[in-house]
Amino acid sequence: MNRVDATRFEADQPAHGLADDVVVEEPLEIRVAGDTLAITMRTPGHDQELAAGFLLAEGVIKGRDQLGSIAHCGRPGDEGWGNVIDVLPAPGTVIDVERSRRGTLTSAACGVCGRKSVDDLLARSTPIDDALKVERRVLANLPEMLRVEQKNFMRTGGLHAAALADSAGRLLLVREDVGRHNAVDKLFGRLLLDRALPASGRILLVSGRTSFEIVQKAVVARVPILVAVSAPSSLAIRTARAAGLTLIGFARQGSFNVYAGSERIADQHAG
Amino acid sequence: MNRVDATRFEADQPAHGLADDVVVEEPLEIRVAGDTLAITMRTPGHDQELAAGFLLAEGVIKGRDQLGSIAHCGRPGDEGWGNVIDVLPAPGTVIDVERSRRGTLTSAACGVCGRKSVDDLLARSTPIDDALKVERRVLANLPEMLRVEQKNFMRTGGLHAAALADSAGRLLLVREDVGRHNAVDKLFGRLLLDRALPASGRILLVSGRTSFEIVQKAVVARVPILVAVSAPSSLAIRTARAAGLTLIGFARQGSFNVYAGSERIADQHAG
Repeated sequence: MNRVDATRFEADQPAHGLADDVVVEEPLEIRVAGDTLAITMRTPGHDQELAAGFLLAEGVIKGRDQLGSIAHCGRPGDEGWGNVIDVLPAPGTVIDVERSRRGTLTSAACGVCGRKSVDDLLARSTPIDDALKVERRVLANLPEMLRVEQKNFMRTGGLHAAALADSAGRLLLVREDVGRHNAVDKLFGRLLLDRALPASGRILLVSGRTSFEIVQKAVVARVPILVAVSAPSSLAIRTARAAGLTLIGFARQGSFNVYAGSERIADQHAG
Repeated sequence: MNRVDATRFEADQPAHGLADDVVVEEPLEIRVAGDTLAITMRTPGHDQELAAGFLLAEGVIKGRDQLGSIAHCGRPGDEGWGNVIDVLPAPGTVIDVERSRRGTLTSAACGVCGRKSVDDLLARSTPIDDALKVERRVLANLPEMLRVEQKNFMRTGGLHAAALADSAGRLLLVREDVGRHNAVDKLFGRLLLDRALPASGRILLVSGRTSFEIVQKAVVARVPILVAVSAPSSLAIRTARAAGLTLIGFARQGSFNVYAGSERIADQHAG
């Protein structure tokens, strides 16, 4: 959090000075063995997790065994220190950055791009067949639990959160970031580094909306249920249905909508 | 908007079926003379504007004169038609995609990435010295005007809007998209195609938060005032101050905060 000087204009009052807390956004350049793969705008902190989670979600690495050290380059105190992170492959392994870059950007036959993103994901992920069943009350309570957890971070109004919960509704891990996708990468990156993937039997909870990108990350991490506080997109729903992911949206005040995989919700008819 | 089947779990009621309207998200592959530059997830519609605005914001093109035709490739009715768009340079001009791609991804000296994104932007944009002054009441009213304009689109809960207003507070153009950055690209893309850039004397209004990326697009389009309904990030503020952009956040219910360039607001002390 950064404190900045601002000027507040309120109703018909004279303008007055204000010290405002704003969310920190800084670029992070992610390198693999010195070669730049991507630059993402993120909130500093948990950068190793972010890099690991990003590489996994993008299909650049398949698992923990390919990862060697992950470290910021340069020295503390250098100008801009902390904004470049280098991922080294584990000894004896190779991470093919060029192949990944080509994979993302290779032109398919004209017109099939719409299918390609979804097909690429499904091609590297078999459908999720996790037998998890969760009580509807557990799911309905999750957003309030996240809200309590975020209390100290709400001041900036600019942070998204991603959390992992177990089937009893206990929050196991929470990550925050100025970018929704970064919060999820940090969360799954931590699990990857801890060799705690696949995330079978767990629930992913996100504070915002659900786009294709968020569903993609959930499917790669093999988490069977995704709960979002806000709306899903059409492609998020289509992809969740194809991948066997339970997708929940508008989880607020004890209610929610299920867009895919409702068989994982227990007591559907209970009062 | 797509209508999808969902299951609604409300309070202690039995679950029931629901036909829900969701925002459409589809990938758009942006090509330059057949060469893939980027894939963005967007809401279909105004794709020419999106492609033009994206190329301008990223510095791939400098202005309208470099643009020839912009057209979806393939034929209507083909599978996935509409998800690939090809930008041709104007006759006798060249758009150097490789240079842009290298520009984005070239490794700077270790550690200076944090400065580089901001410096790159400032290097290609002199500070905005627009003498525009706007009444505080005009600025305070803008969010409500956008809300009215968006009324028909609020059902999905998943659309962001960007609007252009004049100094009297009239909305001149509104664009919406599942992605905040896409809505802004569509808006400025339209102005670019109409040869209506730089956007001197105008106000950019966005429905969400302000990140570095949104400030970058505003600076490239030379709009002097950016008003956002939600929070700015630290880097958005730092960049706006360096670039001479007036940055307003939390514009709600007649109040707002000014983080940069407050000299463009008239009657600061008026009751």
